[in-house]
Amino acid sequence: MTTRSEQNPIRVGVLGARGRMGAEVCRAVEAAGDMEVVAMVDSGDWMFDIADAGAEVVVDFTHPDVVMDNLRFCIDQDIRSVVGTSGFDEAKLATVAQWLEPKPELGVLIAPNFALGAVLSMRFAQLAAKYYDTVEIIELHHNRKADAPSGTAAHTARLIAKARTEANLGEIPDATTSDPTGARGGQVDDIRIHSVRLGGLVAHQEVLFGGEGETLTIRHDSLDRKSFMPGVLHGVRAILDHQGLVVGLENLLDL
Amino acid sequence: MTTRSEQNPIRVGVLGARGRMGAEVCRAVEAAGDMEVVAMVDSGDWMFDIADAGAEVVVDFTHPDVVMDNLRFCIDQDIRSVVGTSGFDEAKLATVAQWLEPKPELGVLIAPNFALGAVLSMRFAQLAAKYYDTVEIIELHHNRKADAPSGTAAHTARLIAKARTEANLGEIPDATTSDPTGARGGQVDDIRIHSVRLGGLVAHQEVLFGGEGETLTIRHDSLDRKSFMPGVLHGVRAILDHQGLVVGLENLLDL
Amino acid sequence: MTTRSEQNPIRVGVLGARGRMGAEVCRAVEAAGDMEVVAMVDSGDWMFDIADAGAEVVVDFTHPDVVMDNLRFCIDQDIRSVVGTSGFDEAKLATVAQWLEPKPELGVLIAPNFALGAVLSMRFAQLAAKYYDTVEIIELHHNRKADAPSGTAAHTARLIAKARTEANLGEIPDATTSDPTGARGGQVDDIRIHSVRLGGLVAHQEVLFGGEGETLTIRHDSLDRKSFMPGVLHGVRAILDHQGLVVGLENLLDL
Amino acid sequence: MTTRSEQNPIRVGVLGARGRMGAEVCRAVEAAGDMEVVAMVDSGDWMFDIADAGAEVVVDFTHPDVVMDNLRFCIDQDIRSVVGTSGFDEAKLATVAQWLEPKPELGVLIAPNFALGAVLSMRFAQLAAKYYDTVEIIELHHNRKADAPSGTAAHTARLIAKARTEANLGEIPDATTSDPTGARGGQVDDIRIHSVRLGGLVAHQEVLFGGEGETLTIRHDSLDRKSFMPGVLHGVRAILDHQGLVVGLENLLDL
Repeated sequence: MTTRSEQNPIRVGVLGARGRMGAEVCRAVEAAGDMEVVAMVDSGDWMFDIADAGAEVVVDFTHPDVVMDNLRFCIDQDIRSVVGTSGFDEAKLATVAQWLEPKPELGVLIAPNFALGAVLSMRFAQLAAKYYDTVEIIELHHNRKADAPSGTAAHTARLIAKARTEANLGEIPDATTSDPTGARGGQVDDIRIHSVRLGGLVAHQEVLFGGEGETLTIRHDSLDRKSFMPGVLHGVRAILDHQGLVVGLENLLDL
Repeated sequence: MTTRSEQNPIRVGVLGARGRMGAEVCRAVEAAGDMEVVAMVDSGDWMFDIADAGAEVVVDFTHPDVVMDNLRFCIDQDIRSVVGTSGFDEAKLATVAQWLEPKPELGVLIAPNFALGAVLSMRFAQLAAKYYDTVEIIELHHNRKADAPSGTAAHTARLIAKARTEANLGEIPDATTSDPTGARGGQVDDIRIHSVRLGGLVAHQEVLFGGEGETLTIRHDSLDRKSFMPGVLHGVRAILDHQGLVVGLENLLDL
Repeated sequence: MTTRSEQNPIRVGVLGARGRMGAEVCRAVEAAGDMEVVAMVDSGDWMFDIADAGAEVVVDFTHPDVVMDNLRFCIDQDIRSVVGTSGFDEAKLATVAQWLEPKPELGVLIAPNFALGAVLSMRFAQLAAKYYDTVEIIELHHNRKADAPSGTAAHTARLIAKARTEANLGEIPDATTSDPTGARGGQVDDIRIHSVRLGGLVAHQEVLFGGEGETLTIRHDSLDRKSFMPGVLHGVRAILDHQGLVVGLENLLDL
Repeated sequence: MTTRSEQNPIRVGVLGARGRMGAEVCRAVEAAGDMEVVAMVDSGDWMFDIADAGAEVVVDFTHPDVVMDNLRFCIDQDIRSVVGTSGFDEAKLATVAQWLEPKPELGVLIAPNFALGAVLSMRFAQLAAKYYDTVEIIELHHNRKADAPSGTAAHTARLIAKARTEANLGEIPDATTSDPTGARGGQVDDIRIHSVRLGGLVAHQEVLFGGEGETLTIRHDSLDRKSFMPGVLHGVRAILDHQGLVVGLENLLDL
């Protein structure tokens, strides 16, 4: 990875700079020794500020309704992007990839979760999957969360299921014959997920693997939105050296 | 509690002495300094051996089909009982209580779970219940278990629900509006239970309480049927000083 | 416990009202349906405001240097106190008790920890202690904490040690013969304490009990100073019906 | 990896076949569909049985005093080895490597821990190390264990320290200024290790990583020596396709 210094910092523009995540990004970039905020833009502001300020990388925590316009603009202006805004489906990703075709040197990172621990958890779950007959996921969040299971749990389940299929593991053995209340939880791609909702919690996930006489547990606890910042900064540094569309921070980690 | 010594040990008869639990009971009683096995009886053996041997307390890990006959016999012979055999409903318990009426000095303990940690967990859950708005149970067992949720989890849920009602706590607040896969688990008396089944596990339970900015977790891990023995020995010692029918080991613990 | 209503709320004065804890107390009292803030006092303010406003209970999160003067004033004015300020030793507690002698109807609560989960954890640890041969404590805090072990862990160790002594349990069996690096941790009253310091943590504690084939774990996670508020409110309500000096919130809980 | 079938099973010889681990290996090999035990040898038996029986791979759980002779014999006879016997230092490993020089096609696996979960834990700890400022290890074992910390914890600490050095991470930030009882535990290569000893436990380890507002925990629970068998079988299968000396099962896993 290109390393930069205080003398020659990476020039970062922040979109959604007055939102909770955007404000946190501004603080984190300023606190890092090898990058600086050169433009802070939010709704109502002039997008060209980003280009005028000479931003090399834009960090986008805005809204699904505007993120595609932002990306179009940045790509046109030859600015790299690190995007944490949600709502990307296959169609949108394909559109972005198409926009990038005439600019093979330009990198764009779109990631659903920037917490390093969440990304590492998913990666380790993927790596461990083929070595265990049985696996289940417990995700625990505060009781104000409206949906179950969490997006990260569902995504983890899909990654595990894919790894099991590739290793020809077959169905998870389960002797349950009586479950009148549905205590065995939900399933995503045949992987059981248990969603706990409790006051006092923030965002937590355990992936439990079970084998002969042993278990392996990978647990991630996220207590603060600050937890996303190291991942964002890593994305900013890494995207300078990457070409094309990268989906998921795990692809920029050396695992 | 009456304390006894090696010089004057408690005389114990074991019913179901050749079963896995019964054999473990025989070993545990012999290893204790203050009691001894005076009779070991299993199916096909002569029940009067128990009386002839002068047993003061009988430990019964047999079968639902024979346990009532065993109890009838012991009560007739003025022998106290510590019963771990399953299958007691309200009707059977009422019958035992009736048999005990003419013998007010005689004690009988019937308990669904002799693991001290399980009993303490349930008691602590009951005590904590009124101080927390939210509570859920996770029980984790090996994947050869046929039923979900576990009996202990269901019993714990009922105890918590009762304590909440007595404290006028109302319904557990839960913002879940979307749960297409059933990931939020089952409910017993409105308490959520999540049943995890995994190779390598034995028998484990967590009760999670959530309040303002904090959580309290009570976890019990049972790795071996030896874990029931301290509770059985405690029951043997304590029942000597108790009159009448006692249901649940927790009533003989000083909590 | 006396219950009060919105029509007839408990009148609460807050000392140290502009401090972080005091401000949180003001918010919590106002949010509760059965009490109201009638006076907010901080350094530089006029203490008689508390009396003039007709406060029934004062909550004191101030400083060890001023808390004794505050208590003297409140007792003179027949106002009950709930004190979270630190620094009370045996001598100070004896002084407060003496001040209370001529006012037998007046209650004062002084507590080192108002988090319900911490208080319940300590109580449960005390209750479980006599049933287990082995016990150790793990406390986990952020890596900005200067001292190890935590005060709560040391206090928990002392409570467990006392319960073991009362139950004639003797020394904890430990086969360790080689520990060149000190990995077995520290000891308070012969109870092992392990102090983990890690970025991302807040304040957490586990008490682990081990017996034959089973373990019992009592875990408390405190993520926010909000976690002290339910304990403070409980103290306010309960102290109305208590006479004399009460040290420790556990004495006002029904356990 | 070469896959073999019931028609053409891998021919396995077991050294130390009457020991607890060896007997478990015999059962595990027989239960696997793609290999069979062709010779069982223990002290007093004739080593040439292994060769006469046409063993392709030998599994050695014997004793540090005899394992070098066993290896010498197997290498001379062109038999591959999977070794779980302990006591290998740099000098012994160098000797084995030298013996293998004239036989470039022959593979030997020597591993300190065959539990897949332990091996995966160590590998994941190594991978995660460079992404976190702070890390500590808690290892928990039954209270009959004589030494602290455990060999696996010490080995894990060394792997983490090495990964930190390679990533130029510097010293772990720690604000502890007062630790009169040694509660902060031991250190191996500057990584803190906490050794818990408790009745009822078997062998457990947690590696805790802490970052900005989040933690990542990798936990391994080993409840039965059966937990080593999948790793042994994996080693038998994988060593068929490997040349030379392999130290550590992790080098034969696809991570």
